[in-house]
Amino acid sequence: MGKVVTLGEIMLRLSTQAGNRLVQSDLLQAHYGGGEANVGISLANYGHDIIFASKIPDTALGDAVFKHLRRYRIDTRFLLTGGQRLGTYYLETGIGERAASVLYDRAGSSFAEMDTLEWDLAELFREVDIFHVSGITPALSKRWQKMTLELMKQAKKAGCNISFDINYRSKLWSQQEAGQTLQQLLPYVDYCSAGKLDAIHLLGIDEATSKQKVDKAFYYRKMQQMFPNIQLFYGTKRTVHSASANQLIGTIWLENKYYESKMHDIDPIVDRVGAGDAFAGGILHGLLVEMLPQAMVDFATAASALKHTIHGDCNQFSKEEVERFKEVGSGKISR
Amino acid sequence: MGKVVTLGEIMLRLSTQAGNRLVQSDLLQAHYGGGEANVGISLANYGHDIIFASKIPDTALGDAVFKHLRRYRIDTRFLLTGGQRLGTYYLETGIGERAASVLYDRAGSSFAEMDTLEWDLAELFREVDIFHVSGITPALSKRWQKMTLELMKQAKKAGCNISFDINYRSKLWSQQEAGQTLQQLLPYVDYCSAGKLDAIHLLGIDEATSKQKVDKAFYYRKMQQMFPNIQLFYGTKRTVHSASANQLIGTIWLENKYYESKMHDIDPIVDRVGAGDAFAGGILHGLLVEMLPQAMVDFATAASALKHTIHGDCNQFSKEEVERFKEVGSGKISR
Amino acid sequence: MGKVVTLGEIMLRLSTQAGNRLVQSDLLQAHYGGGEANVGISLANYGHDIIFASKIPDTALGDAVFKHLRRYRIDTRFLLTGGQRLGTYYLETGIGERAASVLYDRAGSSFAEMDTLEWDLAELFREVDIFHVSGITPALSKRWQKMTLELMKQAKKAGCNISFDINYRSKLWSQQEAGQTLQQLLPYVDYCSAGKLDAIHLLGIDEATSKQKVDKAFYYRKMQQMFPNIQLFYGTKRTVHSASANQLIGTIWLENKYYESKMHDIDPIVDRVGAGDAFAGGILHGLLVEMLPQAMVDFATAASALKHTIHGDCNQFSKEEVERFKEVGSGKISR
Amino acid sequence: MGKVVTLGEIMLRLSTQAGNRLVQSDLLQAHYGGGEANVGISLANYGHDIIFASKIPDTALGDAVFKHLRRYRIDTRFLLTGGQRLGTYYLETGIGERAASVLYDRAGSSFAEMDTLEWDLAELFREVDIFHVSGITPALSKRWQKMTLELMKQAKKAGCNISFDINYRSKLWSQQEAGQTLQQLLPYVDYCSAGKLDAIHLLGIDEATSKQKVDKAFYYRKMQQMFPNIQLFYGTKRTVHSASANQLIGTIWLENKYYESKMHDIDPIVDRVGAGDAFAGGILHGLLVEMLPQAMVDFATAASALKHTIHGDCNQFSKEEVERFKEVGSGKISR
Amino acid sequence: MGKVVTLGEIMLRLSTQAGNRLVQSDLLQAHYGGGEANVGISLANYGHDIIFASKIPDTALGDAVFKHLRRYRIDTRFLLTGGQRLGTYYLETGIGERAASVLYDRAGSSFAEMDTLEWDLAELFREVDIFHVSGITPALSKRWQKMTLELMKQAKKAGCNISFDINYRSKLWSQQEAGQTLQQLLPYVDYCSAGKLDAIHLLGIDEATSKQKVDKAFYYRKMQQMFPNIQLFYGTKRTVHSASANQLIGTIWLENKYYESKMHDIDPIVDRVGAGDAFAGGILHGLLVEMLPQAMVDFATAASALKHTIHGDCNQFSKEEVERFKEVGSGKISR
Amino acid sequence: MGKVVTLGEIMLRLSTQAGNRLVQSDLLQAHYGGGEANVGISLANYGHDIIFASKIPDTALGDAVFKHLRRYRIDTRFLLTGGQRLGTYYLETGIGERAASVLYDRAGSSFAEMDTLEWDLAELFREVDIFHVSGITPALSKRWQKMTLELMKQAKKAGCNISFDINYRSKLWSQQEAGQTLQQLLPYVDYCSAGKLDAIHLLGIDEATSKQKVDKAFYYRKMQQMFPNIQLFYGTKRTVHSASANQLIGTIWLENKYYESKMHDIDPIVDRVGAGDAFAGGILHGLLVEMLPQAMVDFATAASALKHTIHGDCNQFSKEEVERFKEVGSGKISR
Repeated sequence: MGKVVTLGEIMLRLSTQAGNRLVQSDLLQAHYGGGEANVGISLANYGHDIIFASKIPDTALGDAVFKHLRRYRIDTRFLLTGGQRLGTYYLETGIGERAASVLYDRAGSSFAEMDTLEWDLAELFREVDIFHVSGITPALSKRWQKMTLELMKQAKKAGCNISFDINYRSKLWSQQEAGQTLQQLLPYVDYCSAGKLDAIHLLGIDEATSKQKVDKAFYYRKMQQMFPNIQLFYGTKRTVHSASANQLIGTIWLENKYYESKMHDIDPIVDRVGAGDAFAGGILHGLLVEMLPQAMVDFATAASALKHTIHGDCNQFSKEEVERFKEVGSGKISR
Repeated sequence: MGKVVTLGEIMLRLSTQAGNRLVQSDLLQAHYGGGEANVGISLANYGHDIIFASKIPDTALGDAVFKHLRRYRIDTRFLLTGGQRLGTYYLETGIGERAASVLYDRAGSSFAEMDTLEWDLAELFREVDIFHVSGITPALSKRWQKMTLELMKQAKKAGCNISFDINYRSKLWSQQEAGQTLQQLLPYVDYCSAGKLDAIHLLGIDEATSKQKVDKAFYYRKMQQMFPNIQLFYGTKRTVHSASANQLIGTIWLENKYYESKMHDIDPIVDRVGAGDAFAGGILHGLLVEMLPQAMVDFATAASALKHTIHGDCNQFSKEEVERFKEVGSGKISR
Repeated sequence: MGKVVTLGEIMLRLSTQAGNRLVQSDLLQAHYGGGEANVGISLANYGHDIIFASKIPDTALGDAVFKHLRRYRIDTRFLLTGGQRLGTYYLETGIGERAASVLYDRAGSSFAEMDTLEWDLAELFREVDIFHVSGITPALSKRWQKMTLELMKQAKKAGCNISFDINYRSKLWSQQEAGQTLQQLLPYVDYCSAGKLDAIHLLGIDEATSKQKVDKAFYYRKMQQMFPNIQLFYGTKRTVHSASANQLIGTIWLENKYYESKMHDIDPIVDRVGAGDAFAGGILHGLLVEMLPQAMVDFATAASALKHTIHGDCNQFSKEEVERFKEVGSGKISR
Repeated sequence: MGKVVTLGEIMLRLSTQAGNRLVQSDLLQAHYGGGEANVGISLANYGHDIIFASKIPDTALGDAVFKHLRRYRIDTRFLLTGGQRLGTYYLETGIGERAASVLYDRAGSSFAEMDTLEWDLAELFREVDIFHVSGITPALSKRWQKMTLELMKQAKKAGCNISFDINYRSKLWSQQEAGQTLQQLLPYVDYCSAGKLDAIHLLGIDEATSKQKVDKAFYYRKMQQMFPNIQLFYGTKRTVHSASANQLIGTIWLENKYYESKMHDIDPIVDRVGAGDAFAGGILHGLLVEMLPQAMVDFATAASALKHTIHGDCNQFSKEEVERFKEVGSGKISR
Repeated sequence: MGKVVTLGEIMLRLSTQAGNRLVQSDLLQAHYGGGEANVGISLANYGHDIIFASKIPDTALGDAVFKHLRRYRIDTRFLLTGGQRLGTYYLETGIGERAASVLYDRAGSSFAEMDTLEWDLAELFREVDIFHVSGITPALSKRWQKMTLELMKQAKKAGCNISFDINYRSKLWSQQEAGQTLQQLLPYVDYCSAGKLDAIHLLGIDEATSKQKVDKAFYYRKMQQMFPNIQLFYGTKRTVHSASANQLIGTIWLENKYYESKMHDIDPIVDRVGAGDAFAGGILHGLLVEMLPQAMVDFATAASALKHTIHGDCNQFSKEEVERFKEVGSGKISR
Repeated sequence: MGKVVTLGEIMLRLSTQAGNRLVQSDLLQAHYGGGEANVGISLANYGHDIIFASKIPDTALGDAVFKHLRRYRIDTRFLLTGGQRLGTYYLETGIGERAASVLYDRAGSSFAEMDTLEWDLAELFREVDIFHVSGITPALSKRWQKMTLELMKQAKKAGCNISFDINYRSKLWSQQEAGQTLQQLLPYVDYCSAGKLDAIHLLGIDEATSKQKVDKAFYYRKMQQMFPNIQLFYGTKRTVHSASANQLIGTIWLENKYYESKMHDIDPIVDRVGAGDAFAGGILHGLLVEMLPQAMVDFATAASALKHTIHGDCNQFSKEEVERFKEVGSGKISR
């Protein structure tokens, strides 16, 4: 199996129970998660060795983060303690036509306030196959834009492949700032999660004409032309019928070829948070065990579909369970 | 913004958790609500000044009613205390093919037992734009039939417009008695919520022939002919696929023109109680802020659709939230 | 009304709350049930006199079983106490594409370990109309294969009709062993719940050719030829769209005629466990009150559809409620 | 074992969770109970055959009452259905210095509104050892005062012993009316639960002088003089330190002798409702199995102490469990 | 009745359920509260007109604060919206020997970041009897030290009496800084909540010698000498046996006389947060209705004792309920 | 810090919520634990490196055990998978006078059925300071008696100190069999948890005469004479006032000297399971960091007292938290 480092912020999520608005909620569900931590947990569940690097406060909430990660066999040696607070957000769970609503309370967190790379990077990246990071990290501060670039350079130097999930958040930075940063980062990236909106709004690719739209891989192809260094593009296409019913197709672009999974009907959705991370986890697993491209995208999409059926950010399925789900299909009880 | 008086009974609802019959329920959810109170809360959420007039017992349950209403900025100066009990009902929440089931325990309530209009009506209706009442009130007793008429007369005299929601309940009175009462009340009404079944069974309008059915406004048109004083008819058309999945279209008839909203797919339904009141609240808001007819029916239907997604009788959305929902559409998360 | 004996194992079910895997569950829901007990409860709800015969340990869990059954007016005089433990299973409730998952912990139970028929059979079967048992009982041990046969013989001798639900469980015995046992048991059976897979894999009937498939009753017809003694075959056809959405049609074969119910759209499914037992209960009720065949299959399917909408193994509906549901149809609230 | 009839009202109790006032409670716990039903359940748990006679509405709540009683093996053949509603009360659970608070909503119940004894009394009392009734029943109406007397006469005629728990409720009737009724009823009573306050305020016995107080049996002795027909007086002495901590001593007066149990320290109290009924159940059990007086009062007090440790009105302990508790004493775990 | 302004920060409290540490808590209870808001709610419950002035963000959490306060009839016209976040803290509820533990996450809140007095002070203090504020406000920032002084001056000028609760929090500022600030503020104060530790550590009063200790009012007397302008000192003496059991005595110093309440045994404690505010609310009520000193301290202490028996920060008792509790005493149920 | 191996069975505990009997419980709380695992978690919390060796089934419940242990940083490399089932027990939580009650369902578990030592013992014990095991393990089977002895011999050979908690369970084996086994095992033990009852009933020491009783260390002294190899005896003296209130004193015997901690008043008890393990964990920590004897017994007793205040088997406190609790004492909140 492989060895992977994921690095990013991990937060406390406080979510309402379905059918209640935040304003009417006396009880809030506490979950801990963040994109990179979630990807790490998926990979740990599949048997890989995972380091999650971040910084959290030395408080009971920080302790809860440690315990959460260890539960899934994550190596926490590079999880620093210090700083003022754990980033927090409130999730008003959506249902039916009513979308979920997020209220961030993340400013000033221990991770966001970091201004030097406090880890021993040589040690961090030693014998690591993949270094995974997301676009949320450089969105946190000017310092983090520089530090993210530095991390990629050091990881590259240490022989890691770089996985990067663009994950653009408009509440954190402007399209312009994000675009400029991506121009610096993407030349170091090997595996990139990106979609149509990223291509258009952040990378300046023209929207497909009606003729070009026939090509399902149009944006992947264009992005590949801009960044020939990227070996793999991956992403999902989601059709949102309501907050409770979505359809999901996973896609990849590999060696100038486009692959997509079958479509999953996800109804009802229990908890959508972390579904993209579950997809990324499945893709990285596919790379590490050298799956064929079609198997890889099928596996990753199945993992993401399963994630929607459970509470919490992180995927709770072994690779055997994902494989069986891929084959057996939907809803059959075994007894 | 406007000033509105709503008047009617408010009850304690004890409901089961979805998936449990009443007979197997150890825990019951307590909510306080009633049609007129619910309409008032919607309007208060949109920024109007609302008086809710009723009578409740001077007990802990009565105190809970006060606190419930004040939470939403309702003026409770005309909420009288006295009498024997708070009307109660048990709601066995429906799901899928199994419909909800209501068990009333409302006889002898403080409000139903009233036999004089104990309020200072001049004070109650001073500078009020709209007086809203429903057909449940005259259904409670012979006295209430007379008192409802008297209220409308006094409100009219004080310069209010009268909003009336027919809201026929077969468990409370006969079609004949209801029909006779409506003949007395409707001449005073300005805005009337009424539907096809009311037209046929209470007002004696012949059912539309297959040819007439082409006219979506057939019944509105006929009722308008009977009561030319009514400025606006409003109502919803609901297609019940199951207790969990409905489709909803709002309709109005204004100045001899028919308008309807887009159709909302409501799936799953969290709590349907109060959805009609949310629609009425949206219509009255539209009138008070002088929306165009199409905007008004769209707003009211959006408000009603949103109500289905939360627990409890009363709408928990601001006018900005309803507007945004109307525009953005279904199930998109913002972050 | 009739008098019925059902006999079999009853277990403790520990199930997760929807949206949680077993591994992440701190709270488990406890229900008591088993196929034959569930059928008995349905029949008791419809007004019949029911004896449930089984054996359970003399512990708090055994006491809970007694209380559970008595609640539904089941006669527990033939519920023996003794042995080591109550069979248990864990149900990870399914939702959407994720199927439910069952983890058995039933070996060594008081019932499974029985090696003599400890009841006074003459007393047990006195004036009984129907004796109902399922294929799970002979699957428990070699002894139980013999004892099941003996029970059928004695019941027959006492003048009972025999109802048998094949209910094949691959985790308990092989198809070969089940097939051989069925050859011994079915000659004593009057009413038999069996389906296509039973016909092919256990009774050795060839799969229908594409031409034969046109005959909806193909397998019933073939099984009837093998066992002309069986007066009635019954079963359901279930289309599994997901763990949350199924379609259900009930079917029977009676006097060389095939009947089927209308199709029920079951969405969402609250709890599927016991839905087959609710169907069997409806069929046996139909037999006992001499319903016409179409009414019988409609009633039984309605009962089964309703079962899906409530938590727990056992149907909580009276015959009047099932009838009303059959007629009124889906999801209409009455108030 | 014995055969006992208990007769009285059974109600729905809706109680708050400890630490919440009624006004702040979104969830209410539903329990069914009433003094005579509770006594019956205790006796059924000890192995006696119990008939509970009452009248409840033919609704889902009535059905829940049936299922509640059957669970404990109560014979419900004399539980009539009809009338308008099930009596209800709200219990704001007390804790620490804050006492519990009861809000009755029981007027107009099916039982309270009865005006004839609708049961076949000959059948009801056939071969019955003890008929148990309480002072709540005659408090419900003038009719019930007469009907209670008639029941006692008929029971007496049929050879039953009469057990009567005075259970004075000041919210239901005046001391004067209660006193007059008692003068009529007590001459028929064999076993009577009564205390100091009953003696003084209802029976007109002068309060003990400081000298007389030395006699622990002073009031029993005086009441015995007034009603020499009464074979046994029973009651508890409760020292209320707070709503969470009480001390309890059981007492009886039998053949001119006074007995009392050891004192039980009850801390914390889980649910006090039904503790007096558990004591009465223990006493009647002692009578039926002919315990020695000291054993009887010890058993009954132990049963009452145990009742305080569980939620719900009714005692959930077998006679073996009560005996073991009596001997082993407090708080030792066995494993 | 009186008119009172209270001004201060209001926060979101997220607390664990008793018996769980924060690190093991999946569910957190959400309450909104703050010392000054809590005092205001007590006074509103007693019938006074209360303005609560503060600043909260314009988010769903801010909306929840509005709804919380309105529920208790608080005037929210001076509750400003704006700024970045609502101050938050986590409460690990204590039990038995294990003390509660507080984790603050309040930096950067809308209120703490205020740097001008954004209210129309003339309007705020118009016809106000008492202005109540606490020592937490000047502890929030240097700006708030100045602004608190300015508020007192303006309130004084407008004719208000000033109530000040020292409420020293070592996590917010040093003893030295607090002491200097108090020297500036106390000359404007009329009613002051202060205790022995405040006297010694903040005001520099020497600890009582063993001889001086005989004087229960020693520290009150000394503080009075320092600030002769203060008309009333008030406070509670709490003996902490454990996190679940405390003893509480209320004390006041008025016109050179010392009064104390009887001792309350509080066991178990449901929720201690806000108990001091309930005491302050009782004192201010006593002043507004001109109670005699002993009645005032008895009332306030009873209110505080009751607060310990319910969840949430704010007292949920009317003045009649507090009076009745004062008289009837402990734990008696009324029915 | 040290390195410790603990080895034993780990089970699923299903417990009722306080105030409910098992028979009335619809919801059961799931916890995973066992004496040796619990000791290991305490030590891991204090910073030591812990291996827990056991065998569990390869099921979802087994997976939950892995995740539970990893959460606390336990090394699970020696946690084998295989066998049939996870041992289970039901805990009816006690409260007040009602003791907790345990219902075992542990026969046939993967661990109990082991018949060879499947671990690589050389690897297991490499560089390990202490090997901890309890008397429950040899109680499981004849094979386990031999295997426990073999484990001790191998551990000894590898240079470990042996810690042994006698932990006699009468439901698992007889006193005679236990006594004979102890005679074989104790010669290998260095640190032994044992009490008066063990001394008398298992080791055959005569009960202390009234004169001998003055010596608090009487039984320790006698056992030391029998087994001079044992360096340290440790245990707790518990006074059980009720299931909710206990007093606890920790004691040790070291180098012929007796030490005891101050007495802890534990009221209320949240969850007593694992309190002895928390004490053992504290003692072993004291040994590993070479505390002075008095500090060691104080620390261990404080840890045990804290354990009583939280749900679940395992102690959730760091060594800093235990130290602070030891010093600060009872129930003081810090904020």
